Amino acid sequence: MHAPRKPVLIVGSVALDTIETPFGAVRDVLGGAASYSSVASSFFTNVRMVGVVGEDFPREHLRLFQEREIDIAGLRTSTGETFRWSGYYEYDMNQAHTVATHLNVFETFCPTIPAEYRRTPYVFLANIDPDLQLAVLDQIESPKFTIADTMNFWISGKRNRVLDVFKRVDAITINDAEARQLCDTASLVTAGRQLLAMGPKMVIIKKGEHGALLFTPDDYFVAPSFPLEDVRDPTGAGDTFAGGVVGYLAFTDDVSEENMRKAVVYGSVMASYTVEDFSLNRLARLEHGEVLVRFAEMRRMTMIAE
Amino acid sequence: MHAPRKPVLIVGSVALDTIETPFGAVRDVLGGAASYSSVASSFFTNVRMVGVVGEDFPREHLRLFQEREIDIAGLRTSTGETFRWSGYYEYDMNQAHTVATHLNVFETFCPTIPAEYRRTPYVFLANIDPDLQLAVLDQIESPKFTIADTMNFWISGKRNRVLDVFKRVDAITINDAEARQLCDTASLVTAGRQLLAMGPKMVIIKKGEHGALLFTPDDYFVAPSFPLEDVRDPTGAGDTFAGGVVGYLAFTDDVSEENMRKAVVYGSVMASYTVEDFSLNRLARLEHGEVLVRFAEMRRMTMIAE
Repeated sequence: MHAPRKPVLIVGSVALDTIETPFGAVRDVLGGAASYSSVASSFFTNVRMVGVVGEDFPREHLRLFQEREIDIAGLRTSTGETFRWSGYYEYDMNQAHTVATHLNVFETFCPTIPAEYRRTPYVFLANIDPDLQLAVLDQIESPKFTIADTMNFWISGKRNRVLDVFKRVDAITINDAEARQLCDTASLVTAGRQLLAMGPKMVIIKKGEHGALLFTPDDYFVAPSFPLEDVRDPTGAGDTFAGGVVGYLAFTDDVSEENMRKAVVYGSVMASYTVEDFSLNRLARLEHGEVLVRFAEMRRMTMIAE
Repeated sequence: MHAPRKPVLIVGSVALDTIETPFGAVRDVLGGAASYSSVASSFFTNVRMVGVVGEDFPREHLRLFQEREIDIAGLRTSTGETFRWSGYYEYDMNQAHTVATHLNVFETFCPTIPAEYRRTPYVFLANIDPDLQLAVLDQIESPKFTIADTMNFWISGKRNRVLDVFKRVDAITINDAEARQLCDTASLVTAGRQLLAMGPKMVIIKKGEHGALLFTPDDYFVAPSFPLEDVRDPTGAGDTFAGGVVGYLAFTDDVSEENMRKAVVYGSVMASYTVEDFSLNRLARLEHGEVLVRFAEMRRMTMIAE
């Protein structure tokens, strides 16, 4: 099959994470939404990454991006230290507990989209300040498909700007707790419908180990998460998921509902690998064939006979 | 289609429940695992119910069983009061908080299976003392398919007897928290495999609003729950689910893996109606056509194209 294979532009954070889970602890490892989503997307198509790191950012981390053939011309190095996040997970790994967030170079980050990136047809705005997401939307030209992520911090602090983003993108990803918070309802179905009414044509609610829900005006799709015996570190699962979704859409250049379902399943597959190890370790050694195997298993495990 | 339509024997509690949820409160309404599961099963096949009520049990509740053509020759009336449960749910309705449990006539209940019930091919042992479940298994003759439910109370207090039940039945249903408790693991996949190793050929882990997982030695199936905008009272959802599962299996007289998947989906559909209203109110006015509609929707919402 000769696939259309359009490129993807990803704007978001590149971070150094310090993480503790019941299965281990790591310090200053590669993290950040743009890192996870770009590497996930790179399994499907060409990725152009926009973000910022500090002068202390280890060169070895760039090697992973280069190995995955990610275009990092848009990854700036600024004076100062790289964005750092530290947190821990208890037995219930659906819930991250933040210990500290040091924005560092991210504090003054203003994403400038290189001229040669501005006509990228597929765009993922990872979880950053909604004002920055809007600034990116102002710079890109006639995109085919834009998708944005957000988080509770912005929903509480900049609700109206988050809603401005929702009005201007084709799709959003949001986790279950955030959807409930934003829509003030216990029902995710009610929340999904309300979110659609806010502007986007597609809403994906991420439920962690319980999978994801895809809402479109005429359709509703439920994807499970891939069943795992060992989850070592859930950090980056949501970003990986979104990267897989947009990567598959760009690879097929098809944003129909039917294809969107497959994209959501590919997103779940990519996330299932991320959580098997700390940082991007599992994605770094992932083979394309493994992605196809789990996709086929996901189809098999959800099939209901006539 | 001329279906085989085998009968089902259900043994469990019939109760009067007092319940408060964020959407209302009811006092001394019809409840109990045998009530929910028998009425759910009755949408698919003939049901024979074994349980006990007190002299105070309102006659009007028997009318529902009779309307559903449930055989209540095995429902004894004993001297004393009917089993009573009272509890409440907060905003997160996945979690029931028990206020009081009064066993009353249930305290001395020893299920005697009427002679004409002993060869019933399909048997559901609802959540009762595992010693009573074993006593029922001793009385039935060459059943085709037995399925048992249990709960945290018995897992803590009579773990070995629960395991004795698991060794002797074809299938078990258990909720996610109980599976984790019994198997001492966070992973439901690990728990499902461990439970299979304890004896049953099929294990169903119920995840409330997140659906259900079906484990067999060679297969793994994920069923979502039906998406609802309004959940008024989750009481009885798990019992309704199990009743739907065993009812559909008996209706088709087919316990293949493929058919078991469909049974799990029918179970989810039945449960989705139960939670829309208090007590068995929604099931009491449910039409068979509505069951088929939601089953078709469940297939549609999980379908992934090739």
